[in-house]
Amino acid sequence: MEKIRIGIIGAGRIGKLHAENVVKLPEVELKAISDIFAEQIIEWATSLGIKKVTNDYKTIITDPEIDAIFICSPTNTHTDIIAEAAAAGKHIFCEKPISFDIGDTKKSLQLVQEAGVKLQIGFNRRFDHNFKKVREVVASGKVGDPHIIKVTSRDPNPPSPDYIKVSGGIFIDMTIHDFDMARYLSGSDVEEVYVQGAVLVDPVFDEYGDIDTAIITLKFENGCIGVIDNSRKAVYGYDQRVEVFGSKGSVTVANDHPNSVEVSTEECVYHDKPKYFFLERYQEAFIEEVKLFVECILHDKDTVVNGYDGLQAELIAYAAKKSWEEKRPVKLAEFHDEIKIMA
Amino acid sequence: MEKIRIGIIGAGRIGKLHAENVVKLPEVELKAISDIFAEQIIEWATSLGIKKVTNDYKTIITDPEIDAIFICSPTNTHTDIIAEAAAAGKHIFCEKPISFDIGDTKKSLQLVQEAGVKLQIGFNRRFDHNFKKVREVVASGKVGDPHIIKVTSRDPNPPSPDYIKVSGGIFIDMTIHDFDMARYLSGSDVEEVYVQGAVLVDPVFDEYGDIDTAIITLKFENGCIGVIDNSRKAVYGYDQRVEVFGSKGSVTVANDHPNSVEVSTEECVYHDKPKYFFLERYQEAFIEEVKLFVECILHDKDTVVNGYDGLQAELIAYAAKKSWEEKRPVKLAEFHDEIKIMA
Amino acid sequence: MEKIRIGIIGAGRIGKLHAENVVKLPEVELKAISDIFAEQIIEWATSLGIKKVTNDYKTIITDPEIDAIFICSPTNTHTDIIAEAAAAGKHIFCEKPISFDIGDTKKSLQLVQEAGVKLQIGFNRRFDHNFKKVREVVASGKVGDPHIIKVTSRDPNPPSPDYIKVSGGIFIDMTIHDFDMARYLSGSDVEEVYVQGAVLVDPVFDEYGDIDTAIITLKFENGCIGVIDNSRKAVYGYDQRVEVFGSKGSVTVANDHPNSVEVSTEECVYHDKPKYFFLERYQEAFIEEVKLFVECILHDKDTVVNGYDGLQAELIAYAAKKSWEEKRPVKLAEFHDEIKIMA
Amino acid sequence: MEKIRIGIIGAGRIGKLHAENVVKLPEVELKAISDIFAEQIIEWATSLGIKKVTNDYKTIITDPEIDAIFICSPTNTHTDIIAEAAAAGKHIFCEKPISFDIGDTKKSLQLVQEAGVKLQIGFNRRFDHNFKKVREVVASGKVGDPHIIKVTSRDPNPPSPDYIKVSGGIFIDMTIHDFDMARYLSGSDVEEVYVQGAVLVDPVFDEYGDIDTAIITLKFENGCIGVIDNSRKAVYGYDQRVEVFGSKGSVTVANDHPNSVEVSTEECVYHDKPKYFFLERYQEAFIEEVKLFVECILHDKDTVVNGYDGLQAELIAYAAKKSWEEKRPVKLAEFHDEIKIMA
Repeated sequence: MEKIRIGIIGAGRIGKLHAENVVKLPEVELKAISDIFAEQIIEWATSLGIKKVTNDYKTIITDPEIDAIFICSPTNTHTDIIAEAAAAGKHIFCEKPISFDIGDTKKSLQLVQEAGVKLQIGFNRRFDHNFKKVREVVASGKVGDPHIIKVTSRDPNPPSPDYIKVSGGIFIDMTIHDFDMARYLSGSDVEEVYVQGAVLVDPVFDEYGDIDTAIITLKFENGCIGVIDNSRKAVYGYDQRVEVFGSKGSVTVANDHPNSVEVSTEECVYHDKPKYFFLERYQEAFIEEVKLFVECILHDKDTVVNGYDGLQAELIAYAAKKSWEEKRPVKLAEFHDEIKIMA
Repeated sequence: MEKIRIGIIGAGRIGKLHAENVVKLPEVELKAISDIFAEQIIEWATSLGIKKVTNDYKTIITDPEIDAIFICSPTNTHTDIIAEAAAAGKHIFCEKPISFDIGDTKKSLQLVQEAGVKLQIGFNRRFDHNFKKVREVVASGKVGDPHIIKVTSRDPNPPSPDYIKVSGGIFIDMTIHDFDMARYLSGSDVEEVYVQGAVLVDPVFDEYGDIDTAIITLKFENGCIGVIDNSRKAVYGYDQRVEVFGSKGSVTVANDHPNSVEVSTEECVYHDKPKYFFLERYQEAFIEEVKLFVECILHDKDTVVNGYDGLQAELIAYAAKKSWEEKRPVKLAEFHDEIKIMA
Repeated sequence: MEKIRIGIIGAGRIGKLHAENVVKLPEVELKAISDIFAEQIIEWATSLGIKKVTNDYKTIITDPEIDAIFICSPTNTHTDIIAEAAAAGKHIFCEKPISFDIGDTKKSLQLVQEAGVKLQIGFNRRFDHNFKKVREVVASGKVGDPHIIKVTSRDPNPPSPDYIKVSGGIFIDMTIHDFDMARYLSGSDVEEVYVQGAVLVDPVFDEYGDIDTAIITLKFENGCIGVIDNSRKAVYGYDQRVEVFGSKGSVTVANDHPNSVEVSTEECVYHDKPKYFFLERYQEAFIEEVKLFVECILHDKDTVVNGYDGLQAELIAYAAKKSWEEKRPVKLAEFHDEIKIMA
Repeated sequence: MEKIRIGIIGAGRIGKLHAENVVKLPEVELKAISDIFAEQIIEWATSLGIKKVTNDYKTIITDPEIDAIFICSPTNTHTDIIAEAAAAGKHIFCEKPISFDIGDTKKSLQLVQEAGVKLQIGFNRRFDHNFKKVREVVASGKVGDPHIIKVTSRDPNPPSPDYIKVSGGIFIDMTIHDFDMARYLSGSDVEEVYVQGAVLVDPVFDEYGDIDTAIITLKFENGCIGVIDNSRKAVYGYDQRVEVFGSKGSVTVANDHPNSVEVSTEECVYHDKPKYFFLERYQEAFIEEVKLFVECILHDKDTVVNGYDGLQAELIAYAAKKSWEEKRPVKLAEFHDEIKIMA
């Protein structure tokens, strides 16, 4: 195999982002891209040197000259495409979440396993320079056994009402990244979840049975405990910080800023706000995740974020949703049978 | 009234601390101090110019030349002494908690109210330069309506097993300060509490039915939500940070350090750990709280931290204890009758 | 003109760096590269899609299909190549310094002016996210009139003795970047220079009449004063900081770090050292400078760092050298005739 | 000797400051204070418990019940008072500078030496928590041999024209503290000085032959080099930072701030300005220096900042003045005979 030949399904914001990163990798040829509005992306695709632009994603899956598929279409299409791609023997990079239904997600993972193809889930934050370093510090034992995991994750602005409506709710749409981060940093699966939430940013969240502000308590299987706090609107920009506190110390990570300039005036000392949103903040992490996916295929290694990771984050999200609805702590064991199958 | 004449009951660590701060105030005369081991403190008391040292605290309360009493004896003696001091018309500065029983605490507050004396509870952190500034920023509206309140509070070392045994448990002994801080910063009472906890530092906590690591979720009456994380052992020193996140921004406070020196070497860039424990960290705050207590008496003003504040923090502590025991969120309204009486 | 067609002369570290950045620009075609060891770069050049690799740079200059030349060969070849490129009507990007002789530099600028081609000097730091922002703050008037300009610039490791020998000395080789930065930040030319220096890192510098540690005082034409401190060896990595202090405040910039992770342990609180050296630190700035050069050609605008800037930095470097040799402050007016011609 | 009995000469700002600190020391009795406007300080002195208030300083010097004298009167009275105090066998704490004349200063030191009394000069910054720690780090060898010493020292506001007139100029009045700091941090005497200066803050400085902005380059006897930058007006408050850069690393110290609160808003992230001026910034250092002076007397130890230190700082100040006047680097050896006598 000389170059990995890739096809992308879905040319929305994230599909385009992956396309632009993938074409810069010397080991990759981006052969094809599909979108239901194919005609609107032809000029852009041509400028990237993509040969095939189609509105029929199936022709990408059946293309014998394609080795791997990026699934960047809406969530409700993921499991069908995974099934087809696995059947066609293509490696799969799938955006999170795999699906809105744990049964569907499980079935996808089985199909992938049976087909023997690789699957990577788009938890890009694991590849961020900061969080990778935090995990290294934890894994090295420098802070001892983890006791408390803290994740702060706040968006600069809420999505549009149209998006909120179909997002699946804050836990599966937004906090799912933080659930994965909590597992990544702690090195442990989650046992129990409790949610305290509120609608404080915009009443529109209430209209769709959703919330915009949340504090989620986690109990991990390895005994440590954790907390995530979320808001859909931090006026000062994307707020992405974590802390792992352990028996030998603590490791924290502050926000990334566009520069390290500080101005002192008669009023105060100030500097620029954090980087605006995920495109700015995780620019390098998005590149890193596709590099590693390609490397896994080239050298036949396991993907770093696999189907089990995708499923676990979804399970925590569903437990969180249940906790919020029933105003009580919820154990993941309530979904026990599903988990067992996959372990 | 020329000078406020003060008597201190209990000359343990905190009683001595208050004594040493009080003697530096020009508006105060520290007349008397009592301790059950009076003979052991005579030399120290003399060096401070304290005229009367006794093992009978009642002679301080009945001394007509004393205006105000500091209660620094063990918690189980507080309510009796409050009753006697109030009856004698003395103003009262009482260390936290007022008692281990909400009924007793309520009764103390009633006696104080009937006697018309002033009562201040020893929540010293409200007087800290950092937290005072955070509260100012919040109260000024600079960060808008509070949405999320976060308190990190970790001790450098657990107390001795002897102390743990009689401490009343982490919530009433340690977290009670954080409960008060959460109320202070949010400007709101608390409605509901949920605790996720663990014994990760030392199994001795388990022996006494206590925990050493906790994440406590709070729902406030004004609609905002909050979280406190506690540990009995942070190897890098006393960890005391807060954040108030609101509709217009966020205000955070970092730990105080003994200096602002930074060393860059071939290995890394490092600086000193935070200040070791509360004596170092809150040195100025302890001075400030007694200054303000004296000022309230001198100018007949309300105390800044009053009996209601003491009761509320205790109520949250009891709700937290119940939440931990019953593994469920607990509303303070479950203690409704008690609260109503005091409001 | 559809795409700017570029040829690079010299494929050492900096020539390769520019090549790799240039090929990523959509408006550019990198057509040719020359090096005296052409055969050693063929594989690398092919992987970048460069069609022509030659050991005869003159064939690049005479190539009618090339619009602009990057001069990345040794300094002693610069003025000859500039003369030939200007005669051939090519736009020129030239690495610093233009030459080791002010007369030669002046002559080059005259030829460029007569030929009407664009010339940009490789002062990459002007394009750095941090320094650009500092300049913006100064230019906006936010810190008022500049009073004191400070530049700290320390390399992580000295160059090899072979390089030191031909480098022209610390001022023309290393500090020249800081001289340009001082002019850029102050918005003023320099009037006088004084050097206090030493050989403290490695006696080899002394062997070549060079120094490795220096403090250079500057007096600017606009009345403000400044200081640069240099070392050839900062064990903790590349140290690149500036400060502009003015009548209304001050603006500082701290080093860039590879991440914002901080670890607290029983010993201390530490974080990673600054980014290692200029390749890591100015990665984005190198991209930015070639982008802007290409843009100047495409839209027929003046280059941001022009020949005058190159000459001024060289003049300061020569005045610094003279100051060090003669142990006295040296005015740039001592080189007056040369400057007048160019102004 | 039970308690050190102290008399203070001069009750201006600094005399009062020392008085208020001295009365808090348990090993000290502040017996007497003199001022030419004695009647204006009687109330204040009484509130501190000072028994004797006089306008005739000689009665303090001749008082057999006084062990040590603090000289806080104007500089032009220092050497006379030192002579009288030394003759009377009193230990001396003298504010900087000792005098405006090196010959006079030398003579004072000789008298002190002959009398065998202790002399401490008021270089309070050596006792600051930050600078003490920097010196510790340097002395421990953690940053290796010092190569570059940097001192930033800027006042928040210029003194009044009346004061400027009699101040002796920026070097002997203000920079003298920085000269002492440079010697303290480097562990070396100074060999050569060069000044680049300007009047940028207020033309009144020019009227008195003074400057308000300066960059002073230092060459130390141990081979390292240094730079001090001064301004009489930093609008953002007192700016007091240092750096020692050495063969094994670097140690820096940032300004002290009144709190560690940071506010993030839609516009920027900001925190409070540094502490306002020396009273706020060096509050603890002023206490520490008198504590140590008292300790030296009590335990018959050498003072930490002695007459030699006072003389050296003055010599550097005079060399700086000469450098500024003659626009050339000035070696301290030009004052060679004077130095030799004292060494």
